[in-house]
Amino acid sequence: MQQLVERIRSEGRNLGRGILKVDGFVNHQLDPELTMEMGRAFARRFQSAGVSGITKIITAEVSGIAPALTCGMVLNVPVVYARKTRPITMAQGVYSAQAPSHTKGGIVELIVSPEYLRPDDHVLLIDDFLATGKTIAALAELVDQCHATLCGIGCIIEKSFEVGRSRLAHLNVPIVALAVIDAMEGDSITVRNPETDPAANSF
Amino acid sequence: MQQLVERIRSEGRNLGRGILKVDGFVNHQLDPELTMEMGRAFARRFQSAGVSGITKIITAEVSGIAPALTCGMVLNVPVVYARKTRPITMAQGVYSAQAPSHTKGGIVELIVSPEYLRPDDHVLLIDDFLATGKTIAALAELVDQCHATLCGIGCIIEKSFEVGRSRLAHLNVPIVALAVIDAMEGDSITVRNPETDPAANSF
Repeated sequence: MQQLVERIRSEGRNLGRGILKVDGFVNHQLDPELTMEMGRAFARRFQSAGVSGITKIITAEVSGIAPALTCGMVLNVPVVYARKTRPITMAQGVYSAQAPSHTKGGIVELIVSPEYLRPDDHVLLIDDFLATGKTIAALAELVDQCHATLCGIGCIIEKSFEVGRSRLAHLNVPIVALAVIDAMEGDSITVRNPETDPAANSF
Repeated sequence: MQQLVERIRSEGRNLGRGILKVDGFVNHQLDPELTMEMGRAFARRFQSAGVSGITKIITAEVSGIAPALTCGMVLNVPVVYARKTRPITMAQGVYSAQAPSHTKGGIVELIVSPEYLRPDDHVLLIDDFLATGKTIAALAELVDQCHATLCGIGCIIEKSFEVGRSRLAHLNVPIVALAVIDAMEGDSITVRNPETDPAANSF
């Protein structure tokens, strides 16, 4: 998604230790038009990958909610966001899976109620980052616990050097990234649009 | 917003102690079309209240993000979501305010970076619930700390019996609720559309 790649080029900051700051349009502030375009891009890319018949989108709070919602708008399907703490409105008998918190440290529990993810659901999994792949693997585990069918995985930004994609290969579903970061060294962030640029393009 | 009132009537559950379960369309699963309509309803209601010139929307993670984003889409302004834990991407020098967690217990810190909320910003504050008003008061405090101008407050659901509206009166801005719960007793939830029904309507 070219608009996203350009935004990362102009605003993304390498904070070191593999941490990319994109707070201005992903993790703290949202640009509604850019976020809507992310939803359109996911829908287009999954369609190109042969994915159809989706009935639900799953994501994780917090930063996955916005791109999952806009993808849900385009596909006209409900969006379930896994909770990281069980609100008192959530009954017992929920499913949970553990994932490391990349930006906060420690382990987080991801919780989904089987009320909203059913065995006949065909599910797209959307999140902000694909880095180590452990959060997405935990969400995929929740889909499996609910006996629903995972049909595709989408992320706004993939950090290819953290090799999460290979961790998810056994799931055997299309994995769509809207922008791919191949390297971050000092002030240099190597980012590309995987739709148009299979090779790395440094800036 | 009639569509919302009807959804609360058909799916809302009184869990006791003032807790309303609306996980199917607010706190765990989102209906994209309903959420988009919330954004349109906020924009329409604030316009009717004479609010204009908005440059930013502020909300709190987690459940405020979706309605704030759709309102941001309609008004074409960025949305800032206050964080409840400081991600490592967020610099020092942030503003914070404390609020009680209504659904989780305890106190949460709400954190905003002054990078995204500037003194010349005219801000709408959107959240899922207006109950005691303490979370919204904390968000208003963050707007004040950033020296931005608060222009209006919007919530999806107001629980009028928790009298949060009076706690926010000193802010002297329009307060818009898309649906108002006047009472919850056993299986009876008294909900109304404040646009069309100034009086209570039990079901």
